[in-house]
Amino acid sequence: MGKIFRELTPVGEARKLFLENISPIRESEEVPLEACAVRVLSESVFAGRNVPHYRRSAMDGYAVRASDTLGASPSNPVLLQLSDKVEESTCTWVHTGAAVPDEADAVLMVEDTVDVGDMVEVRAQVYPNRNIGVVGEDIKKGDLIFEKGHLLRPCDAAVLASLGFSSVRVSRKPIVAIIPTGDELVSREKAGDVPPPGVVLETNGLMAALYVEKWGGIPRCTEIVPDNPEKISEAVKASLDADMILLCGGTSVGKRDHSPQVVESLGKLLVHGVGSVPGKPTALGVIGEVPVVCLPGYPVAGLVALYFFARVGLRKRGAIPEIPGTVLKMRLAAKLSSRIGYVNFVRVVFEGDQVRPLMGAGAGVLSSVAKADGYVLVPENVEGYEAGEEVSVFLIE
Amino acid sequence: MGKIFRELTPVGEARKLFLENISPIRESEEVPLEACAVRVLSESVFAGRNVPHYRRSAMDGYAVRASDTLGASPSNPVLLQLSDKVEESTCTWVHTGAAVPDEADAVLMVEDTVDVGDMVEVRAQVYPNRNIGVVGEDIKKGDLIFEKGHLLRPCDAAVLASLGFSSVRVSRKPIVAIIPTGDELVSREKAGDVPPPGVVLETNGLMAALYVEKWGGIPRCTEIVPDNPEKISEAVKASLDADMILLCGGTSVGKRDHSPQVVESLGKLLVHGVGSVPGKPTALGVIGEVPVVCLPGYPVAGLVALYFFARVGLRKRGAIPEIPGTVLKMRLAAKLSSRIGYVNFVRVVFEGDQVRPLMGAGAGVLSSVAKADGYVLVPENVEGYEAGEEVSVFLIE
Repeated sequence: MGKIFRELTPVGEARKLFLENISPIRESEEVPLEACAVRVLSESVFAGRNVPHYRRSAMDGYAVRASDTLGASPSNPVLLQLSDKVEESTCTWVHTGAAVPDEADAVLMVEDTVDVGDMVEVRAQVYPNRNIGVVGEDIKKGDLIFEKGHLLRPCDAAVLASLGFSSVRVSRKPIVAIIPTGDELVSREKAGDVPPPGVVLETNGLMAALYVEKWGGIPRCTEIVPDNPEKISEAVKASLDADMILLCGGTSVGKRDHSPQVVESLGKLLVHGVGSVPGKPTALGVIGEVPVVCLPGYPVAGLVALYFFARVGLRKRGAIPEIPGTVLKMRLAAKLSSRIGYVNFVRVVFEGDQVRPLMGAGAGVLSSVAKADGYVLVPENVEGYEAGEEVSVFLIE
Repeated sequence: MGKIFRELTPVGEARKLFLENISPIRESEEVPLEACAVRVLSESVFAGRNVPHYRRSAMDGYAVRASDTLGASPSNPVLLQLSDKVEESTCTWVHTGAAVPDEADAVLMVEDTVDVGDMVEVRAQVYPNRNIGVVGEDIKKGDLIFEKGHLLRPCDAAVLASLGFSSVRVSRKPIVAIIPTGDELVSREKAGDVPPPGVVLETNGLMAALYVEKWGGIPRCTEIVPDNPEKISEAVKASLDADMILLCGGTSVGKRDHSPQVVESLGKLLVHGVGSVPGKPTALGVIGEVPVVCLPGYPVAGLVALYFFARVGLRKRGAIPEIPGTVLKMRLAAKLSSRIGYVNFVRVVFEGDQVRPLMGAGAGVLSSVAKADGYVLVPENVEGYEAGEEVSVFLIE
């Protein structure tokens, strides 16, 4: 009782140490293009054919032999016979994207012609290959299209589709076991109406599961585990077939806090106590190949640990590239105080084109999350910002 | 033949006109919290209970009657009897989050005490309500939690869960009919190997479908329709039960371009020809309550029309708030040329901390999309940027 954290690891250092201990999973799976968005290629993709795969007209106009248009101009037009094949002094209509007949070596754009019965008056000269997309001009057979590790976007699916692919090989999604712990918790399914005093609905597991899904993992929630080191240890061991574990609650230094010790007993406890407010009681570890984040039970502290550690850990484990998130530069509508020595996660609300900090909103104050549009991260060595100062605002995702 | 656009509508004006003609759908549906992320509340949510719903200890420590600690200090400690109920000169252990017994009016933090057998030495004085979270301190029964139209985030699901909600009412997702048109097209399923010259795999429908899903709609793809105004008209009429229509191809002014005329014949053609490169042949219209975007068939032009118009239209139709996307400020590794009078959508690739424009990449050059990391939008009145200039880069999503 009355224990305090002997040492707090700065957020950046804790993250670095955690990531150094995570290896990406190697398994891959085949998915149809219809389901490839936001998946990550597990092997490089090369073009198996040319695009275009035929000589393609770049214009609506006439396929011609360029030599037949020599010297043509508005004042000195050349007459060509309209025909269904191209030979000396004949031409054939082609629309944009159509195949250019083999005998033609250029396309004359329609704007440079006048129809005269079954003849076409040519008012400009064209050079060989003019307005023709050659075979493989866009993509050549054998070209590297996407490198291994590329995060697929809907437009990439179209590129792959036009190369004749119907599926691609992507990294398997990491499975994340989510273990809620706490004597005070009751599952939402089991609670009828308002639970008795001292009993709290389990909600961090739901929050963690929805973030895991959003970040590209597959959440697997387990039953609530009581504050008992043996029971927690059993639950963790039963989840070691997952690719990552999120252990919710029991992360502090009180007599009911066992999660970090369980991690230590089964594997390696890398960090216990992080220099962030909220989120201080976060612990990070690894058991075999399975990274573990011990999320504080207080909802906002848990959220911060998810944002700071679970997200990057999951991304590295699943070989999913980080996409830079939205950052808005906005001015503060009021002074923002921060605790020195900690990264302060300060929730803010939009107020016109400014942001107002939600001060006095502790780690347990859930409503501050509901109200917040974004957050400001105040570094360890900054005491806060004055009203009117410009800050970087991250959106609550 | 040889027709040109009589008038091009500037991108901003076209978008405004399109949005003015779109009404959000009104239907809603109930979804479980497990599936509520990225959905939009169709009604405001009020708290049906207090959080906390009991007097909650904010600390590990002892529940006491504040009056019993009067004058206590390290040099003048007060002794209280440890008990399982709180009455004059007794105290009870409580952990953080536990219910504070009714008879207690304060919690003394454990750091200010020393255990002496079954007695507790109190070394600090506390005032009434100290370290107690009162009922409803966080959220009061009846409080407005989220307004109608709020886009739900995973952390919001936790807030709702702790208020006892198991589901919420959200706006129905808009159904978007996607109709590919073009004599030159063949479906990917029907094409065996490389199609014959002049025949192209249909891929814009797949691309549009994956974007529709990403932006919160439900895509519904139809069969390929030939370049025949009656057939296109039939297909559009058969899709008027959808909430929005994307008509791919046949949007220009050639003799095989019928999409805009079909829209005009069935409803209102708002815009045909947009001041953007690529994307000029885009058309926008509305048939009854159903907004229609005619996407150019060239893949990059189609992508631009999706980004510029389909996205915002879908969001308005589905009552889905726009989230500002990621914008990076980066320097150009090379000169970027732009066509004056048009919004130029210039694909760029990352090169260290700079971006390099993919110049000479026309509307048909698919590989430019595969290569691009982001894009720069050059406004109508700007001729381009010099190497080294800072530009705003949007990520290809």
